[in-house]
Amino acid sequence: MTTPINDQIKTPAKNFKIVIEYDGASYAGWQRQKTDRTLQGEIENALRTMTRTKINLIGSGRTDAGVHALGQVANFHCQTRLEPVDFFKGLNSLLDDDIVIRGCERVPDTFHARYDAKGKTYRYHIHNHKLPVAVGRQYVWYIRHPLDIQAMQQAAAGIVGEYDFRAFEGAGSPRAHTVRTVWRAEIQKVADSAVEFEIEANGFLRFMVRNIVGALVAVGCRKISPEAFAGILAGKDRTKAPPTAPPQGLFLVAVHY
Amino acid sequence: MTTPINDQIKTPAKNFKIVIEYDGASYAGWQRQKTDRTLQGEIENALRTMTRTKINLIGSGRTDAGVHALGQVANFHCQTRLEPVDFFKGLNSLLDDDIVIRGCERVPDTFHARYDAKGKTYRYHIHNHKLPVAVGRQYVWYIRHPLDIQAMQQAAAGIVGEYDFRAFEGAGSPRAHTVRTVWRAEIQKVADSAVEFEIEANGFLRFMVRNIVGALVAVGCRKISPEAFAGILAGKDRTKAPPTAPPQGLFLVAVHY
Repeated sequence: MTTPINDQIKTPAKNFKIVIEYDGASYAGWQRQKTDRTLQGEIENALRTMTRTKINLIGSGRTDAGVHALGQVANFHCQTRLEPVDFFKGLNSLLDDDIVIRGCERVPDTFHARYDAKGKTYRYHIHNHKLPVAVGRQYVWYIRHPLDIQAMQQAAAGIVGEYDFRAFEGAGSPRAHTVRTVWRAEIQKVADSAVEFEIEANGFLRFMVRNIVGALVAVGCRKISPEAFAGILAGKDRTKAPPTAPPQGLFLVAVHY
Repeated sequence: MTTPINDQIKTPAKNFKIVIEYDGASYAGWQRQKTDRTLQGEIENALRTMTRTKINLIGSGRTDAGVHALGQVANFHCQTRLEPVDFFKGLNSLLDDDIVIRGCERVPDTFHARYDAKGKTYRYHIHNHKLPVAVGRQYVWYIRHPLDIQAMQQAAAGIVGEYDFRAFEGAGSPRAHTVRTVWRAEIQKVADSAVEFEIEANGFLRFMVRNIVGALVAVGCRKISPEAFAGILAGKDRTKAPPTAPPQGLFLVAVHY
């Protein structure tokens, strides 16, 4: 006679891909931690509740504390009879309302959310006005100084291409390889007081987007020239770059496979 | 010799008008309370800090717990040498970042934010999609059922004019006069999953907008017909109306003088 447990063992392992939206305000970032509440930790807990097994959720990459996502991607392997629709509904009912599972599908066993990612799109929201906002302040970096958009656009154009982005890497988290290819880097005034920066690249170093935004805002405030911005990139020296932009304006928009 | 206190007494009283934006999520509404944190209470505390006198802030009207404002208006009388720009800067630096003073000006002594208000504009945000949102969920009512916008528009058109709105008044807070004139009541699909209701009237009963929205959503979900909606208004019986819409989707947009 087949017990449920034997049955579970005989069920072939499946690989599931999920697309996740989250408001990062209440999380200590993506990566599981022993004490703090994290995105990976919360979703793994919900998966454990659903499957009664410990599941390792593989994210496309980490987002830092306070950073949001509209389309983070992750995958997990699981021996289960559950179908994608079950995880889709089950996770959404178990998770808090600041995490929404936007989709779930079966993928080939070999699919790996991090290794297979060909690139990512990030967006950064700036509120540029003489007054801050109360409504939506959780999702913007407030800059009072009128930004010189043209100068920022000129500087942003200079990071499109294959470069060593070491100058924009976060301190204390060096990677062996710091060369990345940026496909697109656009600054746009999308409304009277809203400025958006969108960047697409084959990969990002830790704090890279926020460090680039910090430097672009320095250009916009005319603290440094577009030429000085280009010099920071070329100099490959993190200590020469302006301060890092705060996390709440940053959104991981999409992961490309 | 003139002491500062005598000087203060001799300074003629001035009347100041302020325009306020706030995120109502952390407040027990507008009206000052002994224990809970309220908008009026917080701003009065800041005014007291600035002027060292107890100031009575007169709002254009109360907003309920969890309701937001982009353009709430209030006034206060104060014997002070401070100018509008001082209150503008001082209040914004004293208040938490979920309250922004958008403007401050001197007004004639007779100006009264409540009595002189000729009308108000409210907006209500609905997120209508098979999935909720994580980012911005604080500012919408999530409705999963696809809304019949045309039926809602038909129903909304029926409240434009002078009517007794008793059927949409909150229970337990009756007014002697329940006739109001609605100048405009518009339902619009502003994006794929965003539906907005905007209403302008010479005055509003307590919970009136949220009760109207609750009934309009019942129409949109085809629980009641536009004709039944009209019947609720005509029937003047609160117990016949569908449930009240939640506060977080509601914004006081402007007060008209």
